[in-house]
Amino acid sequence: MTIGLFGFGCVGQGLYDVLNHSQGLQANIEKICVKNANKPRKIDMSYFTYDKTEVLGKNNLDVIVELIDDSDEAYKIVSEAMSNGVNVVTANKKMLAENFESLYKLQEKNNIALIYEGSAGGSIPIIRNLEEYYDNELLSSFRGILNGTCNYILTRMELESKNYDAILNDAQSSGFAESNPWLDVAGFDTLYKTCLLTVHSFGMILKPEQILNLGIQNITFDDIVYAREKGLRIKMIGTGYKVGENGNGKFRVYAMPHFVIAKDELYNVMYEYNGVEVEGAFSCKQTFVGKGAGSHPTGSAVLSDISALTYDYKYGYKKLKKQASIAGKLPNGELLDNDFEIKVYIRFKDKAEIKDIEIISVEEEYKSTRTNYIVANVKFKSLFALKGNAESKVFVCAV
Amino acid sequence: MTIGLFGFGCVGQGLYDVLNHSQGLQANIEKICVKNANKPRKIDMSYFTYDKTEVLGKNNLDVIVELIDDSDEAYKIVSEAMSNGVNVVTANKKMLAENFESLYKLQEKNNIALIYEGSAGGSIPIIRNLEEYYDNELLSSFRGILNGTCNYILTRMELESKNYDAILNDAQSSGFAESNPWLDVAGFDTLYKTCLLTVHSFGMILKPEQILNLGIQNITFDDIVYAREKGLRIKMIGTGYKVGENGNGKFRVYAMPHFVIAKDELYNVMYEYNGVEVEGAFSCKQTFVGKGAGSHPTGSAVLSDISALTYDYKYGYKKLKKQASIAGKLPNGELLDNDFEIKVYIRFKDKAEIKDIEIISVEEEYKSTRTNYIVANVKFKSLFALKGNAESKVFVCAV
Repeated sequence: MTIGLFGFGCVGQGLYDVLNHSQGLQANIEKICVKNANKPRKIDMSYFTYDKTEVLGKNNLDVIVELIDDSDEAYKIVSEAMSNGVNVVTANKKMLAENFESLYKLQEKNNIALIYEGSAGGSIPIIRNLEEYYDNELLSSFRGILNGTCNYILTRMELESKNYDAILNDAQSSGFAESNPWLDVAGFDTLYKTCLLTVHSFGMILKPEQILNLGIQNITFDDIVYAREKGLRIKMIGTGYKVGENGNGKFRVYAMPHFVIAKDELYNVMYEYNGVEVEGAFSCKQTFVGKGAGSHPTGSAVLSDISALTYDYKYGYKKLKKQASIAGKLPNGELLDNDFEIKVYIRFKDKAEIKDIEIISVEEEYKSTRTNYIVANVKFKSLFALKGNAESKVFVCAV
Repeated sequence: MTIGLFGFGCVGQGLYDVLNHSQGLQANIEKICVKNANKPRKIDMSYFTYDKTEVLGKNNLDVIVELIDDSDEAYKIVSEAMSNGVNVVTANKKMLAENFESLYKLQEKNNIALIYEGSAGGSIPIIRNLEEYYDNELLSSFRGILNGTCNYILTRMELESKNYDAILNDAQSSGFAESNPWLDVAGFDTLYKTCLLTVHSFGMILKPEQILNLGIQNITFDDIVYAREKGLRIKMIGTGYKVGENGNGKFRVYAMPHFVIAKDELYNVMYEYNGVEVEGAFSCKQTFVGKGAGSHPTGSAVLSDISALTYDYKYGYKKLKKQASIAGKLPNGELLDNDFEIKVYIRFKDKAEIKDIEIISVEEEYKSTRTNYIVANVKFKSLFALKGNAESKVFVCAV
């Protein structure tokens, strides 16, 4: 396998290490395209180029591995490589989620592979298991702790009884959070991964804007205490589940903080670990737990994809094709149900902050000079007012 | 897919149900061979035959699915089918473990598939993940709760503070233990599964007699209390791990009860659930949890194998082939290390009972009129005296 690599950051270097220690796979990186010409690199400079056409134009490559940050640039690279008939491995969930339909069509049109195990669940082989192992199983739900940064912050806040800001600062300096953590803490990263799991669980392409994501950016230690007193933990979870009758069902898909009970399989998934629970009609509940991020774990997921290409692996998208044949078109949201009631805990300072949330009934209400919360049944749809809303200071958690 | 089925017990009926509800797979059972002609069956009698040649002789079958109890008979059926060039799916861990080398050679010779996800880990896709996802990863260990019956008994003894006999009786009447539970409780079932995981983790074929298995058949409530007082749980675990330097390492493989700490991923795997933890040099620790037994979960694992045959799936045995190319022959035990010291808890009534165990040093000793125990470093090899020893009343647990 001859590899053309884009990006040599955390995951790119991880892949390089893993590849160097791989026993079975005969693969070598031919060229690495990076953005910053002035950054010192750990390996010989002759590997590097700063011109993407130099890598994309090579015709001896078996695979393009795309591991850059910029999702728009990544989309250009990946779609150009695919149009040239080259197989692609990527871990870029944002790029995949935002452009899924067109990337899927490119695969079909060019009959090539685009595989992306490293894009969700870190080192956990969740996409391949959903795709292959549960290919004929009637999956009823998935629930996952999909973002290592959120889980790391939540774990340390709880175990060390500290505030969000203190832990976030610490996480940033120790490399567990980005200098701009917004995509992680506001739930966008979980959202993108949830989009991908929805494709492989239910055969449905959803756009990120169709799905609700709420994050942990407004959590306070008071919320942790509330959970702790009830024996609960707060976990940032991306979930999808079927409602209604078979063949006539709809799906609810969202990413937001949840209270989980001690018996929940996700309760003990701590720090930067990810965990995904999948439920099928016959296989019952299955849980997968592993490191959710990091150079080597994600590098090893990417390597596993590269290795799969040696035996011409590609996703079969059986569920997507089946839904498409029923609908007569690629299913992209017709079966999504955003019109339901959900019970949530809402912490706020001032009633005006929650005016956009349509409250149906209040079950608990707490007021103090410092903070207020309610536990209420609300219209799920109205929570979209808080999606990506950097002004809001309200914290919402599913009960 | 046209299926010839052997056996219509718990898993066979589960497969029938799962198959009937499968959305994607076009597969039908053509004929079912069963032993007992007089047993009433839930489906039309025209499906059944009592003559194995009637199924083996059919030449329109795409796959033979073998789900009978008798492992010797199963071996005859499976090897005959394979010699006829028919792909086989089985869940018979005893048959596989006892005949692995010859079954592997038959696959290679006839270039056909023998796949067996249902044989270990119940509904957990552990074999396929070891085989495919970790194909280039330097796995350093696996540890698994692989037997649902043992775990069910241990869980209920602990949570209900009851004796072994009471829970075993209950488990038998509710279908969680066989009328003759020996293979389960004495650790043989865990042993067979451990053999299979060893092939797919490390590329080494071991015979069941080469590997130590100790069971829970002699456990008492005193042992549960000992564990509980220390915040531990007793779990029946099959494990394999590498010792020594890379390229120069050996492997330790055994199946026995272990004390596990609360932070252990396997601590919360309860009742009939199975859990497997795999550790790789780069992917770090991964844990898979799911139902370890039962009609539908195992049936769904079998269905997943049948479905994989539709795209010509077979195990690549990359690690086995690599080890074979290094050794110049199929590796069957040269790399197994049974010569080491292990710290164990040993509960006994009379010193004479443990005379065959070579004790190196005693760390704790407890004596009472009712029972005695020691915690000691012992020669691992000497524990083979207790393997499958139905006379012994000693309980041994790895510390």
